[in-house]
Amino acid sequence: MKAIGFEQPFKLEEGNLFKDYELETPQPSARDILVKIQSISVNPVDTKQRITPVEDAPRVLGFDAVGTVEAVGSEVELFEVGDRVFYAGTPNRHGSNATYQVVDERIVAKAPSNLTAEQAASLPLTGLTASETLFDAFGISTNAKENEGKSLLIINGAGGVGSIATQIAKAYGLQVITTASRDETVAWSKKMGADIVLNHKHDLATQLKQHDIEAVDYVFCTFDTDMYYDTMIEVVKPLGHIATIVAFKEKQDLNALKAKNISFTHEFMFARPVHQTADMIQQHAYLKDIAEKVEQGTYQSTTTETVSGLTVENLYNAHKTLESSTMIGKLVINIEE
Amino acid sequence: MKAIGFEQPFKLEEGNLFKDYELETPQPSARDILVKIQSISVNPVDTKQRITPVEDAPRVLGFDAVGTVEAVGSEVELFEVGDRVFYAGTPNRHGSNATYQVVDERIVAKAPSNLTAEQAASLPLTGLTASETLFDAFGISTNAKENEGKSLLIINGAGGVGSIATQIAKAYGLQVITTASRDETVAWSKKMGADIVLNHKHDLATQLKQHDIEAVDYVFCTFDTDMYYDTMIEVVKPLGHIATIVAFKEKQDLNALKAKNISFTHEFMFARPVHQTADMIQQHAYLKDIAEKVEQGTYQSTTTETVSGLTVENLYNAHKTLESSTMIGKLVINIEE
Repeated sequence: MKAIGFEQPFKLEEGNLFKDYELETPQPSARDILVKIQSISVNPVDTKQRITPVEDAPRVLGFDAVGTVEAVGSEVELFEVGDRVFYAGTPNRHGSNATYQVVDERIVAKAPSNLTAEQAASLPLTGLTASETLFDAFGISTNAKENEGKSLLIINGAGGVGSIATQIAKAYGLQVITTASRDETVAWSKKMGADIVLNHKHDLATQLKQHDIEAVDYVFCTFDTDMYYDTMIEVVKPLGHIATIVAFKEKQDLNALKAKNISFTHEFMFARPVHQTADMIQQHAYLKDIAEKVEQGTYQSTTTETVSGLTVENLYNAHKTLESSTMIGKLVINIEE
Repeated sequence: MKAIGFEQPFKLEEGNLFKDYELETPQPSARDILVKIQSISVNPVDTKQRITPVEDAPRVLGFDAVGTVEAVGSEVELFEVGDRVFYAGTPNRHGSNATYQVVDERIVAKAPSNLTAEQAASLPLTGLTASETLFDAFGISTNAKENEGKSLLIINGAGGVGSIATQIAKAYGLQVITTASRDETVAWSKKMGADIVLNHKHDLATQLKQHDIEAVDYVFCTFDTDMYYDTMIEVVKPLGHIATIVAFKEKQDLNALKAKNISFTHEFMFARPVHQTADMIQQHAYLKDIAEKVEQGTYQSTTTETVSGLTVENLYNAHKTLESSTMIGKLVINIEE
């Protein structure tokens, strides 16, 4: 099979060190399925993994993928050959920057039947990140009625995670406030379902008060946590919950959480597959729910940019786009040119 | 009424700066009840509040109290004159180091009918702290069957909070592992219901493995959080939850929570009454449940030491005992000599 990988961690300034490889197509064992990949999406985590040490070269990155099941392991229960599936994979196995991939069925679901591969490829990693933050960390109810009156602030509403988190939170009954600053990101975030979009260039607490919101139940940061740590604590209610997906640059004062009895979660959607948790099949359940909501017309694809052809140039340029931090929605690469 | 207070924050080394005061007995308004106090318990938070700035002298400390309702405000629904009640109060009003006190009925419950005042006085503050940590932060089920197979590590099992947290967690179906190091604290923690008591002078992860426990679902720290921060992260399961009631001395690396997608809560049981949250009546519900479990014989009092007489000497000595950090269970002062 064809794959794109690299021998050692590199920064984009060093040039394009991605290389084409011809690797043996892997065989699925136990609960693995072998997928022939059609479309992949590139995420910020690809760019972060690209600069971490390579243990077993070549390192093949790539998380989000949509493709067709070509073969199944002996213990596979959820899928059959021919099923079209989507998933976010795991960083401790070869990824989706390839024409074929094996993946554990417990972190896979059937792709939404009403979406093309390139539309569906934007959803798994961001959808799982948003689902785990909302349901596992914040503990919101799966019964939308029970979430009525609860409010969520998403810092950076127009990014990949913010876009699907907005849709999921809205569908499950929360009031959703997001932040954006450019006309096109404000418009996009509203299109995703945000009730209120604040300007993150101005003070968020002040803007919330202008909307008669004294404090929110949950804050989800998808951009520069150091910058927003104090603000999250300021605008969340007593006994509220804050979460981030962006690693800190500095140590922080955890006592700041005490006066309001606040909980904090450092969401990391690969924790389940990397640690092979007993409940890793929860990722299958979350993806299945996302696919159903897409088929019902409740959620929409967050794909905004599509490139054709799994080439070193396209992958390098995709990483460049992601690192610019200006992405609205998600960037997808179709494997075939 | 008689009260013991002080004019300015002081350390015990400065001598006994507690003073006797004769203050006007307060009148209950709205949802307040006026309580004639019989017994109080002294908590670590008393010693911490003693060294914070005094805004309105004299500062009257005291949180845990058991007493009899003498009068009720116009909107009181839960209590009648003559009811024997217990509660933990709030630091933004005058406390229980007095013969009378007004307290909002939503943070009060009837005291367990089968306990003396001095037995019941040890339970409210620690019981609320443990309940909020277990139910609000960790989100354990109120249905014990749903908690089967879940495990909790309590760092410092023999202290006031550890003692009642052990009992509550056991009653709600969790496996409870505590830490202690002296023969008497090990014996006390087992008496409270601990399934396993580890020695906190040795490595906790190693000892857990010796008990065939790879990791626990929840870790609750009631002693020196800086010392145990890394250990808590090491021994908790992926997507697990850790909490503390002890403020940090230093800033910490929140990225350490990321690889296992861990949540952290800084429990502070005064957040509800201080911020007058919409759900502050949850404290009434927790205390009511504790009283019922005591009456059913499921929970026992954690009072281990009783002193008679609300005097400046007794209060000073009680603060001294609490600051020694060697307390097993709880110290109670009976108001009448």
